[in-house]
Formats: sequence, C-alpha cells, structure tokens
Amino acid sequence: MARLNENYLKLPGSYLFAEIAKRVAVFKSENPHADVISLGIGDVTKPLVLSVVEAIRKAADEMGNEKTFRGYGPEQGYDFLAEKIIRHDYNSRGIELSRDEVFISDGAKSDTANFQEIFGQDNTVAVTDPVYPVYVDSNAMAGRLGDYDSSTGKWTNLVYLPCTADNGFVPALPDKKVDIIYLCYPNNPTGTVLTKEQLKVWVDYARENKAVILFDAAYEAYVTEKDIPHSIYEVEGAKDVAVEFRSFSKIAAFTGTRCAYTVVPKSVVAYTQKGEAVSLNKLWNRRQTTKFNGTPYIVQRGAEAVYSEEGQKQIREVISYYMENAKIIRSGIESLGLSVYGGINAPYIWLKTPAGYDSWQFFDKLLKEAFVVGTPGVGFGPSGQGYLRLTAFGSRENTEKAIERIKNLKF
Amino acid sequence: MARLNENYLKLPGSYLFAEIAKRVAVFKSENPHADVISLGIGDVTKPLVLSVVEAIRKAADEMGNEKTFRGYGPEQGYDFLAEKIIRHDYNSRGIELSRDEVFISDGAKSDTANFQEIFGQDNTVAVTDPVYPVYVDSNAMAGRLGDYDSSTGKWTNLVYLPCTADNGFVPALPDKKVDIIYLCYPNNPTGTVLTKEQLKVWVDYARENKAVILFDAAYEAYVTEKDIPHSIYEVEGAKDVAVEFRSFSKIAAFTGTRCAYTVVPKSVVAYTQKGEAVSLNKLWNRRQTTKFNGTPYIVQRGAEAVYSEEGQKQIREVISYYMENAKIIRSGIESLGLSVYGGINAPYIWLKTPAGYDSWQFFDKLLKEAFVVGTPGVGFGPSGQGYLRLTAFGSRENTEKAIERIKNLKF
Repeated sequence: MARLNENYLKLPGSYLFAEIAKRVAVFKSENPHADVISLGIGDVTKPLVLSVVEAIRKAADEMGNEKTFRGYGPEQGYDFLAEKIIRHDYNSRGIELSRDEVFISDGAKSDTANFQEIFGQDNTVAVTDPVYPVYVDSNAMAGRLGDYDSSTGKWTNLVYLPCTADNGFVPALPDKKVDIIYLCYPNNPTGTVLTKEQLKVWVDYARENKAVILFDAAYEAYVTEKDIPHSIYEVEGAKDVAVEFRSFSKIAAFTGTRCAYTVVPKSVVAYTQKGEAVSLNKLWNRRQTTKFNGTPYIVQRGAEAVYSEEGQKQIREVISYYMENAKIIRSGIESLGLSVYGGINAPYIWLKTPAGYDSWQFFDKLLKEAFVVGTPGVGFGPSGQGYLRLTAFGSRENTEKAIERIKNLKF
Repeated sequence: MARLNENYLKLPGSYLFAEIAKRVAVFKSENPHADVISLGIGDVTKPLVLSVVEAIRKAADEMGNEKTFRGYGPEQGYDFLAEKIIRHDYNSRGIELSRDEVFISDGAKSDTANFQEIFGQDNTVAVTDPVYPVYVDSNAMAGRLGDYDSSTGKWTNLVYLPCTADNGFVPALPDKKVDIIYLCYPNNPTGTVLTKEQLKVWVDYARENKAVILFDAAYEAYVTEKDIPHSIYEVEGAKDVAVEFRSFSKIAAFTGTRCAYTVVPKSVVAYTQKGEAVSLNKLWNRRQTTKFNGTPYIVQRGAEAVYSEEGQKQIREVISYYMENAKIIRSGIESLGLSVYGGINAPYIWLKTPAGYDSWQFFDKLLKEAFVVGTPGVGFGPSGQGYLRLTAFGSRENTEKAIERIKNLKF
C-alpha cells in the first residue's frame, strides 16, 4: 500500500495569497465598478528591458540552427553567465568566488525550498518572524518542524526570531541552540535591513555553534544606503558559514522568465553524526545534478544581458522607478501619522496598523474604503500581526492614486 | 551543529557519464587525430524547429512590452499549453483529463526526481533493471533504499525487476509486495516496449495492492507500431493508480530549453498510516506551489507551438530522421551477428555484447578500435551487464560512419 508523506497533511490549509484573492474577488463582484489597485503581491509590472529581450531573441535563433544549437547544458549553469555574476556581483565588492561555487537555477523559490534536502532531519531550524513562507513550508514538508499549532500560528519545533518595531526589526540571538538559520535581507516582507555589524552577530553565532546561515539576498539591488551590505560575504567569516540566494526576478523582471543563482562556498560544511565535516558545495552539486537539468539556455543568455553596460543602465532605471514609488508610499503613510518601515533599501513598505485594527481588519478597510489591496502582515508569521505590507512594484499612476485614497481614510 | 543528510554519502561516487567522459578524454589525448563519434549520451542534435523558434521570439517581444508582459505565472503552467496537451496527447487517444490534472514543469528529470517527496519513508520501491538512474538516486537520497552494496551494485531495500533478453525485456511481477513502481516505456535504456496487455499486468497489480505506478513516457513519440500504447492511460484502470511523466526534450529538441509535464489524475491516491486515502493530485499541487515557481512563459509558448499544424509536421520530420538512424544502427549491428533490441519504437538500441566482453570491455573496444562512444549497459543497473546502448540522436553522416567502422571490428 503506497503511503503518503503525512507531513503534508500538517500544513495549514489556506494560503495567504489565495485568501487575499478570494476577498478581492468577493469585493469586486459586489462592487463591479470599483477601480481596485493592488499593492499586494510582490510581482513586478515593468517589462523585461530591451537588452534582455534582444539576447533572448538571439539565443532562440541560435537554438534553431544546427550549428549553434545547444542540448543539455551544465546543471550548474553556463560559464558565460556564472563568470559575469562572479565579476559583477562579487569581485566588485572584494569577494572572491570560484566558478564551481555558483549554481544557476530556475528561481530562488526553488533553491530556498530545496536546499533543506541536503540537511539531516535532526537539525533545529530558526526563521525570522515575519518570514517568506517557503522556508517554513519546505522544512515542514520534510518533517523537521513538528506540528502546527493553529492557536499560536506556530510550528512546535521551529525557532521564531521576532522582528517588530519593538526591537527595531533586528532579530535577537535565539535562547536555544539552532543549527540552520534563514535570514533574508533586504527583508521580505518588512523591507528592513541589517547593517554589517548586525549581520556579523549572526555570522559569529554560526561560527561558534557550527550552524549554517541560509541568506536570501533576492532584493539586494534595492539597497540605496552605502553601509548596508548587498551580500553576506561582505561580513568577515561569512564564507565559512553562509549560503547566499540571489535572483533576477526583482532586479530584472524575471518573475515570469525564471533565473536565479545560489552561492555555496566550498568552506561551508555540515556534519555527520560522527562529527565529520562535509562540504555543502559537494552535496548541493550532487542534489542539482541528480534532480535538476539546468536553466534554459535562452533564459541564461537573457540573464547575461543584465550585466552588459546597456542592460545595467536599463535595469537601474526600472529600480529607480520602483524606489520612487516606495518614497511616495512611505511619505503618504507617514503623513497619516502611522508608523512605517522599509521602503528605503527595499521595494516593500511595512506599516503598523492604526490602533484597534489587526492585519486582516486593516486589509479589509483598505480594500473596502480605498479599493487598495495590501498584504496582511500576520500572513507572514505571528509577529506580523498588526502590520500590513505594501509593495512599490505598481505603476506610478496607480501608486499615486492608491496613496491619495488611503490619505482620505478616517481611522 | 548543522547535520547533513547522510543518505547522500551512501550514493556510489562515480557517475556513469562522468566515467565515460573521462575514458573518452584519455583516449583523445593519446590519439589526438582520431575522429571520435559519440552515440552515447541521450541528447538530441537537431535544432528547435522553426515554429518553436518563432513562438519564443514572439513571446520574448511580449515580455518586453508593458502591455503584454507576464510576471509570475501559474505554478502548474498556463492554460494555453495545458489545454493543447490534453486535447492533442490524450483526448485524441480517448483519454479524458481535467485541466488541473496536468502540471507543466521544467523537465521530466526534475519531476521524476521530486515526485517521491510526497510519499512517506515507509514505502517499498521497485524499478526495472536496467533503469534511468534518477529514479533510484532520488529515492536513495530520501533514505528509502537502505544501503548500497558495491559488490552487487544494488541497494539493500530496493526491489529490482530484471529486464534482459532472457525474459524478452518484460519485467515479472515482484516476489515481495511493493508500493511504488517506476516504469519507463518506451524504455530508456533498452529501447524496448510493453504491449497494452503486458502493461495491464502492472496496472492490475497496482490496483490489487494499492500501489502507485510512476510511468515515464518521455519517448512515446518514437512509438511506430500501432498496438503499442503511448500513454499508460490507454490501459483500463490506469487512471486510478498511475502518474505519467512526459517531456518535450526528445520529441521537440527541448533538452536545453526545458519543458515537460506530469499527469496526476485525481483518482490516484496514497494512504495515511490509518488507511485514509489522499489524492496525490492535491499533494503534488501543494509541492509544486510551495517549491516551484512555474516554467518560463517564453518556453511554454515554444512548447505550445509544437502542437500547431506546422509544428507537428516539423517535429515529425525530425523524429523520422532519428528513427532512420535507428534502423541503420539496428541492421548494422545485426549484420555482425550480434543480438540487438529496441530501435523500433524508441531512439535507443540495446545490443548484447559478444561472448567474452562485459559492458565496459566492449565500450573500450568500440572506443579504441572504432572510435565510437556507446554507453555501457551495466551503468544503468546490474542487469545491464553484458549490454551496451547506442542512440539514434546523432547526425546521419556520423551514424553511418560509426556503423561502418563497427562492422569492420573483429570479435
């Protein structure tokens, strides 16, 4: 009799964005003429830049010609892209990486979800709270998190690191020893960042405790302040304890085109029961060569074009456009007297709901009175209760219109 | 202390195609003027057909335009492609499927590797032997297969179903009860097929034992004989027990472009410890929505073009070309008096090595005396010993030249 993985049955049923979509659909059906603006889901709206489109077209032509056709590519990605990543994203910041420390993939969602596979069952996992749900769900599916307690919204074996206005969104070191730590900076959903010194506390912790940091830097291109690290490897000692996830989704509109990469320095290790250290690079390479067959050639050529002079100029313009939206959202919310976080080094704005409103109540108020869709903070974890996320990825016109409407709300 | 998944350390070190590449490299360095022809790795050589290239170019243009840009797509793939798959590949054979029973992905390698995740640890897995290594390695990584015994080349908890000339490459039902059965037809590596009646034996077994069949049909487009099923759902009752994997890799040169799909009928179930049946469709949907972010839009548009009238004509020409190669290989090997299998409904030819040669010895003889690279059968499993695989995916010129050289060998 085929048995299922019963950990799947422990996952809470209703998914955040599905619930949002449902409420929006109900509202729209009851108010067919309402001009609803979404500042909710973290998807971009500006198209692929011209350099990328041209590179994909050229690559498609190559694939249609017997002389230049490419079949199976390396599971780890093509050298032409990996070399540009290393030079542009790391060497430029004084970080050295070798070619085989970079793994190109179809997305940071896949990589952050799959990476836990190479760890044993008997690890204690820690996540910041609120958090991108994929880190949690993938570990829950693997059976590492115990049971989900719907009264607290917490998994029994997961260590939550609260990040709220009370601690300035800087997670404190955990009381109990943890082995695997997920950090995402610039942070989704709060839009907050850590300085190099604040990040170093975690690197030092990992070194002392032989823990591993899984660092999601998908939003690094939105960092505008000079002293905020783009990569965890800017922190001394991080190359011995940290894996870094990066993505072209938010920096170059690849959400529907799918390309990302993961850096696994050879010096990062995990241990056998007997205490023997094994390089995670070797294990991840085995995972990828066994279960993945590479990112499409045409997509990798598109990603390569992001690094051309023209490509850089084009994506920088788009990022500036979104960050101008972020400013508009921040100052609009501030003018209401509400507390607002993020939006300076990230495309996400995290606002404290006014007194008397929890996350979903404020979501409903925005939807029903301003026709604006946000994301309830509690959907990202228990410490997100009383917050709401707005994103800067809309058009200027919609962003301005949405903020004008929110400004007219009465609390 | 971060602990690793120690199942990874049990995997045998040297990978088949890496070992082949090493031997070929040594030979070439010692014989720099030898014109080595590879009929080894199962990669295609003909380019994407024109319809596909044009569709990708058009989709790239859409992605560069704000009005037609697409961000995150459905994790299960776009309706435009899924509907064509259902109509063309299933309805045409009298098989009904609903839209949400088809999951589009980046490859059958990923899907066949990842699918085991939704099953519990306590399942007994069976594979035909020889076999595509991904089914075995992905279950070994998950800890379902016990230990690898290098003296036998077998995993202690895996049930092997030998397929050799002795049983006409038709696997017999296992002695002990199994829960998950991997079948691949047309078969990689042997190129053999099962009739509907032979496949029905397995469907009946699965129904009686509440087992699940994971059916890899990546080569179905190469079936030329009328009574050979293209899909397991042509067999009565299969929709209750079988999941089917399909791919655009070998039928439309997508090995480097990455698109595939998996059919999970809602009626296929696995059981909880308490004996409650749960639909695999629901579990796989949860897996994909949590750990995967969809196949690139431009790639799905390329795959859609395969189903246009022009696209079908173009890919059929390529398949016929490869199957003509298969004929040349088959008849060439037969003329040597060797036993040869496959190559009629599949692009793979499986030959019995002459007396006195094991798989690797014959591989070396072909390489050193005919400058031809095959794949040693034993690399696909213990029952592959004494066989060698040749593929029909080369150019006509190289295929003819390789066979002429093999014909001149003395055994």
